[in-house]
Amino acid sequence: MPHTAPALSLPSAGAPFEAVALERRDLRDDDVLIDVAFAGICHSDIHTGRDEWGAAHYPLTPGHEIAGTVAAVGSAVTRHKVGDRVGVGCLVDSCTECENCKNGQEMFCTKPSVGTYNSKGYDGEWTAGGYAQQVVVTERMVVSIPEGLELDVAAPLLCAGITTYSPLKRWGAGPGRRVAVIGVGGLGHMAVKIAAAMGAEVTTLSRSDAKAADAIELGASRHIATSDAAAMKAARASFDLIINTVSADLDMAQYLRLLRANGVLANVGLPNEPYSVPPFALIGGNKVLTGSNIGGIAETQEMLDFCAEHGLGSTIELLDASDPAAVDAAWDRVVAGDVRYRVVIDTATIPQV
Amino acid sequence: MPHTAPALSLPSAGAPFEAVALERRDLRDDDVLIDVAFAGICHSDIHTGRDEWGAAHYPLTPGHEIAGTVAAVGSAVTRHKVGDRVGVGCLVDSCTECENCKNGQEMFCTKPSVGTYNSKGYDGEWTAGGYAQQVVVTERMVVSIPEGLELDVAAPLLCAGITTYSPLKRWGAGPGRRVAVIGVGGLGHMAVKIAAAMGAEVTTLSRSDAKAADAIELGASRHIATSDAAAMKAARASFDLIINTVSADLDMAQYLRLLRANGVLANVGLPNEPYSVPPFALIGGNKVLTGSNIGGIAETQEMLDFCAEHGLGSTIELLDASDPAAVDAAWDRVVAGDVRYRVVIDTATIPQV
Repeated sequence: MPHTAPALSLPSAGAPFEAVALERRDLRDDDVLIDVAFAGICHSDIHTGRDEWGAAHYPLTPGHEIAGTVAAVGSAVTRHKVGDRVGVGCLVDSCTECENCKNGQEMFCTKPSVGTYNSKGYDGEWTAGGYAQQVVVTERMVVSIPEGLELDVAAPLLCAGITTYSPLKRWGAGPGRRVAVIGVGGLGHMAVKIAAAMGAEVTTLSRSDAKAADAIELGASRHIATSDAAAMKAARASFDLIINTVSADLDMAQYLRLLRANGVLANVGLPNEPYSVPPFALIGGNKVLTGSNIGGIAETQEMLDFCAEHGLGSTIELLDASDPAAVDAAWDRVVAGDVRYRVVIDTATIPQV
Repeated sequence: MPHTAPALSLPSAGAPFEAVALERRDLRDDDVLIDVAFAGICHSDIHTGRDEWGAAHYPLTPGHEIAGTVAAVGSAVTRHKVGDRVGVGCLVDSCTECENCKNGQEMFCTKPSVGTYNSKGYDGEWTAGGYAQQVVVTERMVVSIPEGLELDVAAPLLCAGITTYSPLKRWGAGPGRRVAVIGVGGLGHMAVKIAAAMGAEVTTLSRSDAKAADAIELGASRHIATSDAAAMKAARASFDLIINTVSADLDMAQYLRLLRANGVLANVGLPNEPYSVPPFALIGGNKVLTGSNIGGIAETQEMLDFCAEHGLGSTIELLDASDPAAVDAAWDRVVAGDVRYRVVIDTATIPQV
């Protein structure tokens, strides 16, 4: 009899979640069985689960912001032991041998890497994510959640945290640096917390002032409504780094103007349309337009250690999933931008069937 | 009677060059009078002189790749003395007080900076460039041409040299780094020489193989014709840095694919249309799209010192301008891409009128 775990599953595109008994593989020598305690809801879950990005494979259990404890380990596991507090992010396998794996950027593995859900593993089996009470992952892809960081607020760090930490670190957010964050949502609120903890002076940008007070509480020193043309004009040439967490089609030239010379606009969202970038918007001021895609395993651990050291967790709403329809409803709220700032599923509530 | 110098001047858009007696200002305390020996022809001269960028002010004497010797100095000049070998690039004044001037990036002076020609100086007078036997420039904006670097091959370094040196330096061209240069022309040939001298492994990219042999001679280890789809596909994910010297509207996504993870595509040309950049082309691989605009005075001096140390000058064709129509003809050849690789005016040949 195969090992199963209570989980939430989408049977097809557009169908609601249903509770299932999800099969998990028997532990291999290097596998860790994790009792999932919490799973964050990331917008990517929705794009994938609703087949908006194409290539969805059903039945589909999403979830790549996973926090829990080790329940069992394979015979060769050395990094984790039963009872350890651990996390799993967007990746569950990579080749370990390509240039990018060797550089600690498993997300760019050329084999390529295996996503935590809706990906075909190297064994040919489709992966299933963290909206479940258990998950089996090779120990290399499992990170430790430091003491002092509660599992519920840690879960979203596995995607939203590393996605914002990585470009903030690469591009030198720190004391004396002025950082702007576009969008105060799941990614944006973590960008604000992390940038502020790094010592940068943080400004938030969003369409209105609706989240201005929250932004200050998260660690921003000021908020600018992008609908305020005068404020936007006054902010020109004032930032060293802008982290754009918005997936909408924004006018890149408008934001490049907000950068000082040599400044960097780093996109972590994936809008549908190509950016239109006037050449002079880059050459005038030697400006940088870049993108950033999650982070590698070692950097994810570094991010968790940083967050623990600075007492940073995600600002969350805990979700009871005893009625699976609650997750469908939460997804709708995420799409509507009506979440402050991450919904986290209490996986203990997932019904057993 | 004002001080005049033999010069070439465009009386209006589309008119041919004519020889004139160009008025040069009396020396101020901090001015240097330079006997111009050589002036490189930059494509920007043509865009400006033919009013293709708008805002041309006639009569117009172009030229911002100037090499010569100091003929006289103002009473307060300390950096240069009569007989010194000196150069002037694209800038002849800046405020010295703004953040960018203080950071050594006078080209981004917020006042703004004053261009070497076709710019209104802080005194309200229009500047006139180096297609002339003399020029007067404030000493701060005059750089020294080191011994060992001939003036004729040094002249193009003042624009083509610094324009390519600056992004190569900023983005870490050096041993173990794979650099591609798009376009083997005035800028591109300098990018190849400098990148190779920095220790990088250099590949050139242009439409055909017409310049392949030249590219190797300039210091490239290989050449790829961009019309060769198989070669372009084979080159994917292989470069750390691409310097794009072409002003045509290129497909940025095609070139971003040639970059390894974390790679940088630096544009130094100014095409007419906005770049169209698929978001995933940046986020997949954390890639960087940037621009670079000449360089500051200190960095220009650093570049000249580097070139002298490595024995690098521009590969030039020397032009006799005793018939001013020769310059019009040279401009046509530059536009046609029929120059290997920089035309330099021997200003001693400019007729006296």
